[in-house]
Amino acid sequence: MAPARQPIVTLLTDFGLEDWYVGSMKGVIISLLPSARIVDLGHAVPPGDLRRAAWILACARPFFPERTVHVVVVDPSVGSSRRIALLDAFGQLFLAPDNGVLSYLLAAAPRYRLYRLDRPDLYLPHVSSTFHGRDIFAPVAARLAGGMKPASLGPRIHDPVLLPTPIVRREGRGWKIEVVSIDRFGNSILALDRRAVPGFPGEGRRLSVRIGKKRLIVPLQASYAAVAGESAVFLWGSSGHLELAVNGGSAAERFGLREGDVVFLAPAP
Amino acid sequence: MAPARQPIVTLLTDFGLEDWYVGSMKGVIISLLPSARIVDLGHAVPPGDLRRAAWILACARPFFPERTVHVVVVDPSVGSSRRIALLDAFGQLFLAPDNGVLSYLLAAAPRYRLYRLDRPDLYLPHVSSTFHGRDIFAPVAARLAGGMKPASLGPRIHDPVLLPTPIVRREGRGWKIEVVSIDRFGNSILALDRRAVPGFPGEGRRLSVRIGKKRLIVPLQASYAAVAGESAVFLWGSSGHLELAVNGGSAAERFGLREGDVVFLAPAP
Amino acid sequence: MAPARQPIVTLLTDFGLEDWYVGSMKGVIISLLPSARIVDLGHAVPPGDLRRAAWILACARPFFPERTVHVVVVDPSVGSSRRIALLDAFGQLFLAPDNGVLSYLLAAAPRYRLYRLDRPDLYLPHVSSTFHGRDIFAPVAARLAGGMKPASLGPRIHDPVLLPTPIVRREGRGWKIEVVSIDRFGNSILALDRRAVPGFPGEGRRLSVRIGKKRLIVPLQASYAAVAGESAVFLWGSSGHLELAVNGGSAAERFGLREGDVVFLAPAP
Repeated sequence: MAPARQPIVTLLTDFGLEDWYVGSMKGVIISLLPSARIVDLGHAVPPGDLRRAAWILACARPFFPERTVHVVVVDPSVGSSRRIALLDAFGQLFLAPDNGVLSYLLAAAPRYRLYRLDRPDLYLPHVSSTFHGRDIFAPVAARLAGGMKPASLGPRIHDPVLLPTPIVRREGRGWKIEVVSIDRFGNSILALDRRAVPGFPGEGRRLSVRIGKKRLIVPLQASYAAVAGESAVFLWGSSGHLELAVNGGSAAERFGLREGDVVFLAPAP
Repeated sequence: MAPARQPIVTLLTDFGLEDWYVGSMKGVIISLLPSARIVDLGHAVPPGDLRRAAWILACARPFFPERTVHVVVVDPSVGSSRRIALLDAFGQLFLAPDNGVLSYLLAAAPRYRLYRLDRPDLYLPHVSSTFHGRDIFAPVAARLAGGMKPASLGPRIHDPVLLPTPIVRREGRGWKIEVVSIDRFGNSILALDRRAVPGFPGEGRRLSVRIGKKRLIVPLQASYAAVAGESAVFLWGSSGHLELAVNGGSAAERFGLREGDVVFLAPAP
Repeated sequence: MAPARQPIVTLLTDFGLEDWYVGSMKGVIISLLPSARIVDLGHAVPPGDLRRAAWILACARPFFPERTVHVVVVDPSVGSSRRIALLDAFGQLFLAPDNGVLSYLLAAAPRYRLYRLDRPDLYLPHVSSTFHGRDIFAPVAARLAGGMKPASLGPRIHDPVLLPTPIVRREGRGWKIEVVSIDRFGNSILALDRRAVPGFPGEGRRLSVRIGKKRLIVPLQASYAAVAGESAVFLWGSSGHLELAVNGGSAAERFGLREGDVVFLAPAP
């Protein structure tokens, strides 16, 4: 029986919105699959920033319905011999360069299958060497959203390219933790998943945090608004990770934090 | 009888487009209501800028069809005890924090009903304290767009939070008027609605305007192009409000104007 | 027989995404044609930049299906007596101010018809002098996407406004070529179409390029990744034009290039 629902294709790229790149990918998809519903996961990934793309994808994934086809084109090696991968996991599909952007999904998936795209017959007739998003990813995504079987795309990949795992390490009474992402508000998201540390100090407790040479005492609260304006606060963010924030301000600016920085956390004495 | 039209949900947030926030709200909505058509009213509201969000909402509203469900997530107090409001007015629905973003609609609506959202059974199973856009607003919007009755959401609100009314005051031969918004082009929109001042000098007349210590004579014309390049001009803008512009340039930059500034206007001698 | 496909309307403007302008255009379109599928070609055209808009439109066009209605509102002379044009070409429709934004399409179309919009009965009841995108372009686009015949919009235009043709001139052993566009990555696209210069040096060859007073030797390769990181490279970009890029960096920044600059190219000795 045909699915009643519009097939969903999401797009996540570092193309920005100032050029014609995203628009032409959409044109290709709806030319091949007029019923497709296209959702922008985002196009403001900093050029070539694989970590950021991996993070966005992993955080947004749980909120999309089964059979969604996600397309990631953050692809600094476009035109080289890098592989293109199709991940079948969580009941959804993820088409992306095999360059690490699927890492966080691979780490979280209870089981998955990963394929190497090898179907030139599905690509646009002329494949450029610089814009595989339009010439390869878009037409293949349209076919997948239209019902094509993942296994028909190519052989299995058993050695995917992976990003380094973000640092989360117990050290003495505390934890050494990497800043995994910084959002628009300057909230600094740490690589500490609530589900992984059941013994972590509870809300209302204070944490000692060392950032470079600075040491601060910051409370762990349930919301930004639980502390005074312009005050720092730790909380469990919407991705389930610990987050350092400033109520009404930017923690990243205040503390000079950048993605990939490592901080040291411990219960305050 | 089922409505033939796709239900429409608009989104207005201060989330920006660089994170996974907007995408995951869309995922929630289309998971619950696959037929929903989602329209971005915008995601570039400066963080926490309630005035800007209120303005965008009030200006765009008249151009959407009946039964549109608008969702506003500019919510600096997320996680506190601030209420969430549903406004039923103009034949449309507006779901927003009760923090003032509905003020301009409330002021303009000939009649309305306002409800306090109190239906945890409709929220996502796990409600975070920092992202009610995804966990509360999105699923409730999907239900409303799917036909749920506003009155079933919760009790009435009779004391909504309101923004200060923008200043428009007759003073002597002129008006003291607040800059209510500044757009991408630097056009500075004043809180003077054409419909409210039938006796205002007509097009072709010159106005004297005092901005801080500067005093200028600027003509009121029908279009930007009616004055020479780089010249200042007053006109009735597309929201029906008086607007100070510079043809081919930015009035806000030229005159150092910001939202909330107050200028003094009078017919030129 | 009615077309099964959703009618497609694309939008290309310089409105940015921070205001209510794009949203209200979408509201008008879906109010009049609920079945319309709206695709953003982009809203980040620099204010009034006709060349950029013309380039985006010409590059994206080949990837949209027949009967697509493209709407361009980059319109610095809005409210003046400038004409509004409807171009019927390539099996698609293009509604735009007659100010040059259609130039590159007109130059490329094997045949076309161009009409002057003259149907006030189709506009919104109140037409502002500053926002024809909402009041004129949007409702007319909805009608066109709904099946209205182009010829019914108004008389033919035989003298469209045209942008200057980008410079591509053979000079001695080389070419004098204009930078026609610069993309988000700083890739500098030159006005040299591969199809127009069959005798051009092939991939693997080196080119001598003079930019202002600098002279460089840069290889022509198949992809960014064919040269070392941070190295300059020429390649045939995804629009079919020659492009000067820096692998992992910005050629525009490195070489101080801007749209409209002219460079001199020749085979390296």
